[in-house]
Amino acid sequence: MAHKLIAAHLVDGTPTPGHEIALSIDQTLTQDATGTLVMQELEALGLRRARTRVSVQYVDHNLLQADEKNAEDHEYLRTAAQRYGLWYSKPGNGVSHPTHMQRFGIPGTSMVGSDSHTCAAGSLGMLAIGVGGLEVALAIAGQPLRIRMPEIWGVRLTGQLPPWVSAKDVILEMLRRHTVTGGVNRIIEYHGPGLDTLTAMDRHVIANMGAELGATTTVFPSDHAVRAFLAGEGREHDFVELAADPGANYDHTDEIDLSTLQPLIARPSAPDNVVPVSEVSGSPVSQTVIGSSANPGLRDFAVVADMLRGRSTHDSVSVDVNPTSREILQDLAKTGDLTDLIAAGARIHQSGCMGCIGMGQAPAVGQNSLRTFPRNFPGRSGTPEDSVWLCSPETAAASALTGAITDPRQLAERLSLNPPQPRVPEHASVNTEMLLAPPEETESLRIQPVKGPNISALPEFTPPPRDLELAVLLIAGDNVSTDEISPAGAAALPLRSNIPALAEFTFTRIDPDYPRRARGHAQDHAVVGGDNYGQGSSREHAAITPRHLGLRLVVAKSYARIHWQNLINFGILPLEFTDPADYDDIARGDVLRLDRLHEDLGHHTELTLHNTTRQHDYRVHHRLSPRQVEAVLAGGIIPMLAHG
Amino acid sequence: MAHKLIAAHLVDGTPTPGHEIALSIDQTLTQDATGTLVMQELEALGLRRARTRVSVQYVDHNLLQADEKNAEDHEYLRTAAQRYGLWYSKPGNGVSHPTHMQRFGIPGTSMVGSDSHTCAAGSLGMLAIGVGGLEVALAIAGQPLRIRMPEIWGVRLTGQLPPWVSAKDVILEMLRRHTVTGGVNRIIEYHGPGLDTLTAMDRHVIANMGAELGATTTVFPSDHAVRAFLAGEGREHDFVELAADPGANYDHTDEIDLSTLQPLIARPSAPDNVVPVSEVSGSPVSQTVIGSSANPGLRDFAVVADMLRGRSTHDSVSVDVNPTSREILQDLAKTGDLTDLIAAGARIHQSGCMGCIGMGQAPAVGQNSLRTFPRNFPGRSGTPEDSVWLCSPETAAASALTGAITDPRQLAERLSLNPPQPRVPEHASVNTEMLLAPPEETESLRIQPVKGPNISALPEFTPPPRDLELAVLLIAGDNVSTDEISPAGAAALPLRSNIPALAEFTFTRIDPDYPRRARGHAQDHAVVGGDNYGQGSSREHAAITPRHLGLRLVVAKSYARIHWQNLINFGILPLEFTDPADYDDIARGDVLRLDRLHEDLGHHTELTLHNTTRQHDYRVHHRLSPRQVEAVLAGGIIPMLAHG
Repeated sequence: MAHKLIAAHLVDGTPTPGHEIALSIDQTLTQDATGTLVMQELEALGLRRARTRVSVQYVDHNLLQADEKNAEDHEYLRTAAQRYGLWYSKPGNGVSHPTHMQRFGIPGTSMVGSDSHTCAAGSLGMLAIGVGGLEVALAIAGQPLRIRMPEIWGVRLTGQLPPWVSAKDVILEMLRRHTVTGGVNRIIEYHGPGLDTLTAMDRHVIANMGAELGATTTVFPSDHAVRAFLAGEGREHDFVELAADPGANYDHTDEIDLSTLQPLIARPSAPDNVVPVSEVSGSPVSQTVIGSSANPGLRDFAVVADMLRGRSTHDSVSVDVNPTSREILQDLAKTGDLTDLIAAGARIHQSGCMGCIGMGQAPAVGQNSLRTFPRNFPGRSGTPEDSVWLCSPETAAASALTGAITDPRQLAERLSLNPPQPRVPEHASVNTEMLLAPPEETESLRIQPVKGPNISALPEFTPPPRDLELAVLLIAGDNVSTDEISPAGAAALPLRSNIPALAEFTFTRIDPDYPRRARGHAQDHAVVGGDNYGQGSSREHAAITPRHLGLRLVVAKSYARIHWQNLINFGILPLEFTDPADYDDIARGDVLRLDRLHEDLGHHTELTLHNTTRQHDYRVHHRLSPRQVEAVLAGGIIPMLAHG
Repeated sequence: MAHKLIAAHLVDGTPTPGHEIALSIDQTLTQDATGTLVMQELEALGLRRARTRVSVQYVDHNLLQADEKNAEDHEYLRTAAQRYGLWYSKPGNGVSHPTHMQRFGIPGTSMVGSDSHTCAAGSLGMLAIGVGGLEVALAIAGQPLRIRMPEIWGVRLTGQLPPWVSAKDVILEMLRRHTVTGGVNRIIEYHGPGLDTLTAMDRHVIANMGAELGATTTVFPSDHAVRAFLAGEGREHDFVELAADPGANYDHTDEIDLSTLQPLIARPSAPDNVVPVSEVSGSPVSQTVIGSSANPGLRDFAVVADMLRGRSTHDSVSVDVNPTSREILQDLAKTGDLTDLIAAGARIHQSGCMGCIGMGQAPAVGQNSLRTFPRNFPGRSGTPEDSVWLCSPETAAASALTGAITDPRQLAERLSLNPPQPRVPEHASVNTEMLLAPPEETESLRIQPVKGPNISALPEFTPPPRDLELAVLLIAGDNVSTDEISPAGAAALPLRSNIPALAEFTFTRIDPDYPRRARGHAQDHAVVGGDNYGQGSSREHAAITPRHLGLRLVVAKSYARIHWQNLINFGILPLEFTDPADYDDIARGDVLRLDRLHEDLGHHTELTLHNTTRQHDYRVHHRLSPRQVEAVLAGGIIPMLAHG
């Protein structure tokens, strides 16, 4: 299936794992936190009008509007989307991934999105890849996506989920088995008879959190479940049947018998810190949150409504409901489930990412918050020393009722509950009231306000010097996420279009003094990282803000895919230790030297890095394609295109 | 009617205008932004258990939870309320005023509340007065409220509101006629045949915004409309009929023929800047917000749903709906109105004060935002240089449809609309799921967390020196609101329990440098004010934070009632210019001298203030009762009680 999708979009290269390929892109998705930069990049590229079939600018992250910044970004995005011929999904319309699936997803098409969970569209048999904003901008401008061909990981599903166990437990089981690096450089392809009982929205849950495994993307076949979904959204005409050929081979394989699964939960503060709920039951809970792109479907809210109907949530729990879209909220109101949720004591929030991206509903320090979200990186909730757990709607609802972490099967036994029978109408409330279509004629339109005080221009990007001699200003550990490099949250996120202001937050979650140190250092500098450096979101701010502060070189044990590409895009050289033990030899303040950069980088993948402080040499290597070498030596993609 | 209510609760004094009276208090209301201090004051008072009939702690202001502070305050308030025997309304349950009216309001009772809109309960025939938190704490401890007997202002209503004109237009007409100082030292008593067609929730709209007139409170009779309201809430047994005697006399009178009113709107940035909507129609609108305690009833949302049903809101308008309570949201879901609102393009936010107190939905700079709120003081929305207008739900909905300020009557004519027929069921969805009753036994309970990092102790309050010699660090203009003295909004409001941190915001809306200057000034200092100094909210932070920075004396042309009392409560002397022209003689940096303070203050209401910089004397006076003199000379009520 993955090979078929790639073959259908291949415009350059051979699809052998590790080789660079170029793929034509049919659709793009941007959200507001990354989209303001994309619009500035379209401006820098001098785009006249989007050349994709469908490009949509969503506003789902920055919805709190605590001051004027959010509203001004919205106005900028609305007028810029209209100017460049993009669809515009108004603030509060819904989270990009489920909304895109409902309104625009088409089996067999390709998509890039400036959001790491773009892979969720694999649920419809799309080839959907999360990338940095600049690559989305290039796709909007009609350029193909260049990536290294990943390996294909066939995961065969058999059996059927038991009562009280749902799709979230499938992906949590994958994370339990394979950790946050298990999917790196792989496309996960689900197949097998276990698919029969998984709806398209169930598959969205599984595909979405493929991002947490580090996978390039996830694909599902386009079958009866996809047809039923599209029919429910009034778009059966968009259905195309697609599946792997019988007996297809995979580079890697795994198998899950769904009938053996149990309710699982990720402990704080990593998505792969997974244990059975029964192992941690009884811990007091102060908050449960239902929502996000990781459990976005009407079914996920309807299950909670079914469990809470006629019951009281616990006095000391805040039961927060984040409808993922206005369409889903409308359906919840129609079926009566919304009334049941409110009656049981739930707080209903506006539609959007909200707490998932640290925009509201932050818990108290150290108090357990159970969320149906995809991520629980430290502090991502907005609270330092937070205690966020990831689980299914069933587990969250059971815990909301008892005030403690509760295996829903145990609650069912105690209260003699029947398994939930979620009310999901065959036809969804199609709601396009907040979707603005691209105008017929766009070139006469003006972007208003041209630039508000919070929308700064992109910084200048300069090429690196001939020889690099760089002090190490920070040593980061394993699995450092982009939330730790350039945090989201209510304080930082409104500054997403203002690089100088946002730069003051760079790395502050792991070292509050880094921005001051970097600004005080006259030359460029280096950062040393552990394994899976830059996991998490697709935000290119995690490359641009440290670059703005002088970062020129990262040396790490290994990288997460999107961040690795973002570093290159903005002129930061990502090297890897050939012997990971060398990581331990370097201390903050050491000076690293790399000679003959411009001569060697294009000709050797193995290089020698000299630690002038310790007089030690390290073997390092890179995985840059010739085009990527060119980009780094030019100072990034933008100067490369400008001079090329 | 007002005299009857006062007579029924009089425990000391004679109810002659200007004389101090003491009133027994049956109920109290606190919200979270002022309530954390009230809980600390209860602790300082050593209270064992609330001595009122009903005391309720609401959480409706700080709901964004952008970081851990809000959630920690909530936990503190929940456990403190339980400890002191108060009801607790959980975060997101609803705005205090309509929720109190629905669940607890009883005609003929008295109430104080640490929120300036407490007067809204006058809609049920209660004597409900907004005061500073310390006076609420004293009432919870069983002490009477001491105020100067106000004058009674009888406003006779005749006729019936025309189509497309509603209760909000009545109170806007009062503001148009009488300005924000028109009600100072008065109780407004509505009477007359025009009441017949006003429901209890309509009266809530009018009573609530009596605060904007500066009135001590507003009272309505308890009649058939109140009976119907209580019956709809399942509380007909709480109904008591109450009215003025036929031919009752008033100190002042006015009359409004409802049939002559038209849709009105308050222009930015004052509630009394009122003009007919038709005079300003056509101005582009970027946002409309429906909600707040100024238009809290189901009817106010149902009207909007009726107008928007089957129509599209304008592409460039954000249509924000802030349900005032979960009960109202539940009813909107039940009647189908919520579905209509969503279908037409509305964003549905959580229940609470939200944008009304600058917690979310801030507009872009300079873009028109039409709100059904009570206040539009500069910057209160969270946006500096905001452009906030106050209007009825009818005007807001008409403008949401057209994208420009629109008189609903003109829209009706253009589209041949029938007047709205709001769907308001006879019986409300009574929802008590988020109301925690006081426990039977409270003294063994612990307040958890005892104090979080954001909950600091109250500062120490010291008595003034024998002679005051104080530099003037700030000169304020007319109608300076407590929003300008101690701002709300998403940055400051979470610090409401942390006086040292909050003090950094003091006066910064009118002079960003004031906190630095005050901290750098070794001695106490003075502030000079214009007319109606300290209008707006009841927050005692507007006295505590400048006191913390060294403010000891305010000399103003005149004061708003609650802030004047708060100054006294926390040991700041409020003097008034006898000749208002002297205001113009003082410049920032002048040193003012007041000799023999301790000897003279209790014996003379007229004093001489010496400007040592200019060698001029000013005649000034005060209106302090002997008990208030004692409080100021002790450094405030808390040290007075501690030493007394």
